[in-house]
Amino acid sequence: MSKPTDLGLPTRLFSHEHRVHFGDSDAARIVYTPRFLEYAMEALEIFMADIIGFDWYHMNVAHGFGTPFVKVEMEMLAPLRPGDRVCVHVFVDKVGNSSLHFSTRGLRHDGELCFSTRFVCVVADQDAGKSIPIPAPMRARLDAYRSLCLEYAS
Amino acid sequence: MSKPTDLGLPTRLFSHEHRVHFGDSDAARIVYTPRFLEYAMEALEIFMADIIGFDWYHMNVAHGFGTPFVKVEMEMLAPLRPGDRVCVHVFVDKVGNSSLHFSTRGLRHDGELCFSTRFVCVVADQDAGKSIPIPAPMRARLDAYRSLCLEYAS
Amino acid sequence: MSKPTDLGLPTRLFSHEHRVHFGDSDAARIVYTPRFLEYAMEALEIFMADIIGFDWYHMNVAHGFGTPFVKVEMEMLAPLRPGDRVCVHVFVDKVGNSSLHFSTRGLRHDGELCFSTRFVCVVADQDAGKSIPIPAPMRARLDAYRSLCLEYAS
Amino acid sequence: MSKPTDLGLPTRLFSHEHRVHFGDSDAARIVYTPRFLEYAMEALEIFMADIIGFDWYHMNVAHGFGTPFVKVEMEMLAPLRPGDRVCVHVFVDKVGNSSLHFSTRGLRHDGELCFSTRFVCVVADQDAGKSIPIPAPMRARLDAYRSLCLEYAS
Repeated sequence: MSKPTDLGLPTRLFSHEHRVHFGDSDAARIVYTPRFLEYAMEALEIFMADIIGFDWYHMNVAHGFGTPFVKVEMEMLAPLRPGDRVCVHVFVDKVGNSSLHFSTRGLRHDGELCFSTRFVCVVADQDAGKSIPIPAPMRARLDAYRSLCLEYAS
Repeated sequence: MSKPTDLGLPTRLFSHEHRVHFGDSDAARIVYTPRFLEYAMEALEIFMADIIGFDWYHMNVAHGFGTPFVKVEMEMLAPLRPGDRVCVHVFVDKVGNSSLHFSTRGLRHDGELCFSTRFVCVVADQDAGKSIPIPAPMRARLDAYRSLCLEYAS
Repeated sequence: MSKPTDLGLPTRLFSHEHRVHFGDSDAARIVYTPRFLEYAMEALEIFMADIIGFDWYHMNVAHGFGTPFVKVEMEMLAPLRPGDRVCVHVFVDKVGNSSLHFSTRGLRHDGELCFSTRFVCVVADQDAGKSIPIPAPMRARLDAYRSLCLEYAS
Repeated sequence: MSKPTDLGLPTRLFSHEHRVHFGDSDAARIVYTPRFLEYAMEALEIFMADIIGFDWYHMNVAHGFGTPFVKVEMEMLAPLRPGDRVCVHVFVDKVGNSSLHFSTRGLRHDGELCFSTRFVCVVADQDAGKSIPIPAPMRARLDAYRSLCLEYAS
C-alpha cells in the first residue's frame, strides 16, 4: 500500500466547513433533517474531488461511471441553526472490490458533535447499471487515506 | 388498545404517491440520494397530518413541541428518474414513551422496490429541548395504525 | 393554427396542485422564497410533459436538446405555509422562433393569489450550446394552448 | 449619511464565493434554474449578517420581524456546472421607507457573468404581517454600503 506522501496526499484528515443557511431551517427553527445528509454528501463530494482526484461530475459525464449510494445511516445528536458553522470530517472505513464505505462526523464550532453518517457506495458503469472494480488510482488513494484514518483513530 | 375503526382510522395502510421531478435528478441522470430521504419524509409528514391528526407545522408553531429525527437508515435498491412515480408506504414499527419508530418503502410504478427507510423521532418540547411523553391522542392513533401494520405483515 | 381539439389538447387551462411541505418553510415559518420558483417550475414541467408531450428528461437524455431558462420574474403577493395547497396555473404567452414565454399564477385554496411568475426559455442543442428552432410538433401544441389562454383571457 | 468607515464598514464591495455541487445539477448536466436563486439569496443572507449586522435568523426568531421577498428578477447568461466556483457580488440599489432593493451578479471563475438578479424585500412585522420602517441602524449601514456601490459604479 502506498503511503499518503507518495501520492501527494495531505498528511491530515480532511474536513469541510459549512455555514448553515436560513433556507436550511424549517418552521421548527432548526435545520430540516435531509439537510444534514446534504452537508455530509457535499463534504464527501469535495473529498472525492480534491483529495482522491475523482470528481463525481467528470466521472459521470466524461467517463461513464459513477458511485451510486446504496446505503445511508445517519444520527442526529444536536440541532443546527442558521449561522452555525459545522465542520464535516470525512473518513474512509473500507475499500471493497466495488464498494466504498465512508463515514462523516459533523462538529459544530463549539465542538459539539451534531451528526454522524455512514455511507456505502458502489462504483458502477452507468449504461450497464452494473458494479465495476474500483479503478486502480482511486483505490490507491482511498487506501492511503484510510491508513491515515486508522493512524488517527489509534 | 383502540381498534382503527373506533378512531375513524382508515382500514388500509397509508401510502403517498410522488411524481419525480427533473430538478430531483443530477448529472448522473438519476435522482440525487438526499431526495429519497425527502420523499420518505414528505410521505411521513402527510401520514402524521392526515392519518394521525398531528401536523408538524401546527405542533411546532401553535403547540411548542415537535418530533425531531434522531436516526435515519436508508437503503437504495433501484434508481429513480424524472417522470417516475414512486409510491411511498408508511409503517409504524414501535411507539415508545417519547420515541416513534417508523419505516417506509418506496415502490416504483412497475412494482420495483426503490428504497426503504427506518426513522426514529423523539417527541420533544421545543423550548426546553427535552423529550416529553407522547400525547395520549397521538399515541392512541399510532398504536391503532401499528396494529393495522402488524395485521398486514402477518 | 391547429385548434386545441385537433391535437387532442384538453379544452381547459392546465393547473397543478401542490401541497406545501414542512421542509419548504424556514425559520420565519413561511415558505422560503426559492421554493415558489420550484413550485412554478414543477407545474411547468408537468405541463410540458402531459399537455405538450415533451418531457424535459427525455428531451435532454434521449434527444440532446433542452429548454434552458434565460429569464425569470417572480412576484410574491401572499405567504404560503406548510399544509397549504397552492394551485399553479400555467399560461403560454408567446412562442418565438426558439424562445418560449410562459407565465404562472399560484392560487392558495382560499382563492388568494400568492405568486405569479414569468419565464423565458430557449430551445437549445445541448452539445452545441446553441438555440435551435422549436420542433414543429412542440410549436403546434404550444400555439394551440396559447390560443386557449387568449380565449380565457378575453 | 455616514461614510462607510464611520460604521466600521469594509471599504470594498462584498462578494461571496460558492462552489457548485453535484446535487445542484440536473439531468441536463447543468445547474437547475432555482439553484441560481438560492446562490444569490445565500450571498445576500451573508451580506446582511456579516456586513449589515442583521442576520435573518435572529431578526425573525428573537426580534419578530423579517424581510420577506416580494419581487425577484433573474437572468441566466451562462450555465454553471458542478465544480465551478461562482463569485456572487451584492449591491444595494435603493433603500426605501420599508423596502430594500438589492441586486447580485454571479461571475464564474473565468470571469464570465453567469447570472444577475434584482430583489425587492420589505421589512415587516411577523405577527402583524405588515411592513414597518427600516430600523435606523440597518438603514445607516445599508445607505453607507449603497454609497460605496455608487462610487464603484461611477
